Amino acid sequence: MNCDIITIGDEILIGQVTDTNSSFIGSILTSIGVKVRQIITVGDNEQSISHAISQSLQNSDIIILTGGLGPTNDDITKNTLAKLFNTKLERSPQVLSHITCLLQKRGIELTEKNRSQADIPTNCIALYNKYGTAPGMLIQAPGNKIVVSLPGVPFEMESIFTEEFVPWLTDNVRLPLRLQQTFLVAGVPESVMAERLQTFEKEMPKAISLAYLPSPGLLRLRLGFFATDHEKDLPMFEELCRKLETILGSDLFGYNNDTLERIVGNLLAKHNFTVCTAESCTGGNIARMITGVPGASQYFNGSIIAYSNSIKESILQINPADLDNFGAVSQQVVSRMAENAKKVFKTDFSIATSGIAGPTGGTIEKPVGTVWVSVSSPNGTNSVRFQFGEHRGRTITRSTLAALNMLRLEILKIVEKTVEKV
Amino acid sequence: MNCDIITIGDEILIGQVTDTNSSFIGSILTSIGVKVRQIITVGDNEQSISHAISQSLQNSDIIILTGGLGPTNDDITKNTLAKLFNTKLERSPQVLSHITCLLQKRGIELTEKNRSQADIPTNCIALYNKYGTAPGMLIQAPGNKIVVSLPGVPFEMESIFTEEFVPWLTDNVRLPLRLQQTFLVAGVPESVMAERLQTFEKEMPKAISLAYLPSPGLLRLRLGFFATDHEKDLPMFEELCRKLETILGSDLFGYNNDTLERIVGNLLAKHNFTVCTAESCTGGNIARMITGVPGASQYFNGSIIAYSNSIKESILQINPADLDNFGAVSQQVVSRMAENAKKVFKTDFSIATSGIAGPTGGTIEKPVGTVWVSVSSPNGTNSVRFQFGEHRGRTITRSTLAALNMLRLEILKIVEKTVEKV
Repeated sequence: MNCDIITIGDEILIGQVTDTNSSFIGSILTSIGVKVRQIITVGDNEQSISHAISQSLQNSDIIILTGGLGPTNDDITKNTLAKLFNTKLERSPQVLSHITCLLQKRGIELTEKNRSQADIPTNCIALYNKYGTAPGMLIQAPGNKIVVSLPGVPFEMESIFTEEFVPWLTDNVRLPLRLQQTFLVAGVPESVMAERLQTFEKEMPKAISLAYLPSPGLLRLRLGFFATDHEKDLPMFEELCRKLETILGSDLFGYNNDTLERIVGNLLAKHNFTVCTAESCTGGNIARMITGVPGASQYFNGSIIAYSNSIKESILQINPADLDNFGAVSQQVVSRMAENAKKVFKTDFSIATSGIAGPTGGTIEKPVGTVWVSVSSPNGTNSVRFQFGEHRGRTITRSTLAALNMLRLEILKIVEKTVEKV
Repeated sequence: MNCDIITIGDEILIGQVTDTNSSFIGSILTSIGVKVRQIITVGDNEQSISHAISQSLQNSDIIILTGGLGPTNDDITKNTLAKLFNTKLERSPQVLSHITCLLQKRGIELTEKNRSQADIPTNCIALYNKYGTAPGMLIQAPGNKIVVSLPGVPFEMESIFTEEFVPWLTDNVRLPLRLQQTFLVAGVPESVMAERLQTFEKEMPKAISLAYLPSPGLLRLRLGFFATDHEKDLPMFEELCRKLETILGSDLFGYNNDTLERIVGNLLAKHNFTVCTAESCTGGNIARMITGVPGASQYFNGSIIAYSNSIKESILQINPADLDNFGAVSQQVVSRMAENAKKVFKTDFSIATSGIAGPTGGTIEKPVGTVWVSVSSPNGTNSVRFQFGEHRGRTITRSTLAALNMLRLEILKIVEKTVEKV
């Protein structure tokens, strides 16, 4: 089963917006056994949209459109679809009532432009958009073709795609069996991992693929293949997964769409632990990663962002002599920050960071990218010096992930010890 | 002059890699007056590549290919080009000597695979790749068409594109003049803006386009067109820009690639003001946005993330009676948070947030998405209640941007007053 993705929007063509929708859609379709044949981006004009759809209908079974569904005049996907499939737009009472509720909740008055978002082609199934006013639309076209139109706003598109369209597709279409597992690893560079997995990869059956998906501070390893004989293939695949897990050891922190902050949050919640942060160079990024997870208030008490030495002294009780002797970016200071934050917030664990994110502030001894991360636990305090690159945003991201991973490993040490005691 | 961009690679189709090359190319082409007609991504197979190029040659003057130029077997762009244009590959001595030097410098031995990267179609101009071994290739095809093939590695592609191709293009082709300006607006929903600009859009010359580019909490408005008569068009376009600015008023915070946090940071730095935050529901997100800007330490002192009531009481000195009587999500509490944070951090301004990000914790009076934002300035404290949606991440983002925008407006009030006084 083939699919073409068509993303619509002048803003993509002129480079104002990077199309991230296609890679989201592509990775999910691939995981359920649909092959993406091509991705096409066209501008906000009827002829281009219409031509792209017609071309794709000749070659692919599924066409997924994103964009062009807003309430303004440059949003023309709906009308183009109606014309192309020789049908009309009709106001859907269900969609209208959803739009009305949504805007009412937000205290926004309903305009005629909002109302018109409930006008959809008569031959389509409306796909519920829980986050916005533009519904998704699914058209079953002649020749068993499926055309789906989704809004361009990523989180609206993602929710409709995964919660409405994918379930519909797996219910209505027979897909080949794809076995796939993604292993999430923190703190190991891609090249080091490639060396570690050399033998594993050599001994792996030919039909299986292992992809390395690196991002700053994290590495995803995706093991996958299209199974032919479920009874034989599944145990073989599962054995391979176990083998890989053994090699990865404690560097493996999760699977598939998990995130490090969610894994850490679950660990804290499960064992009734609490945490706080005292951040300098990460400027609140660790706190916002932790609090981005629903339910974080159960284990996160708070944070102090100490961007100046005077705040480090006044709230975090750092000895001015330590700041003078060792500097703010030092093992001494970062360890005290972690230990004192734990006292201020009365938590079991704490994270502290102090570093030089750049672009200025570096010295020969402590160049830009130098970051101290400290994790204090009921067992004591562990501080590590990292040397990240010269890119400010990347250094903040990598410091944040390194800190969360250190916290994860410290929690595991405590939990394992506790289990031993019992 | 039209251009098609064709990006080549299975890794893009399966969503392993997001194509950022196209938006880079698109934004530069647009700025020099070349219109990007469409972007197509195809897999690593000859038929798809060849078909995409042939189709594009029928509709566009310039075709830019990226990817498929590496030394491995799945890199087939070069051979496809040679076949398509009925020519052969020939080893270029200049390219070979460059590859030899480059690998020597890195201490890597030259293999036959590396050498073969110097084989290029006889009808092409080689474009120098200072960062890698795959040269760019420029083919002047029949019918005044230009086909350019570039490596897929972003920084190699970017250097060849800007330093080799663009200078060649502007030297060899007469380009039209593109006039374009993007207006950045905070705090106004797209539909409300569309109503506000109805007359403006109606009266706008037909050749000019106005695009709405919304993202949570922000709206970008892009005014643009291809000028035909520079002397007449430029003043007309500038007048239109002034007219739009007047309509937008203080909702307009910046232009083109600016960000709200940078604009606010510049304002603070320029007037020697300092700021801090006291965050509950935003969990550090405002602090990390502010500190993401290089040089933020000049005006940002720090932050307290008070995720529990006890921290609100102990560090931010919130009266327990206020927490009991009004709740943490209330005008009273958020105003005191802002005022007391200003005292703790000794700053001119402060931001405080308290809300229910969800998914749980909502009540009938304060449903999920209820957020109080407060900005305290030398003039006093201004607190506003917002009602955002049910999506946790989006509520955090929108609260953050609303807070930064309130801070911007409060700074402007002070600055304007100061100016009046003088």
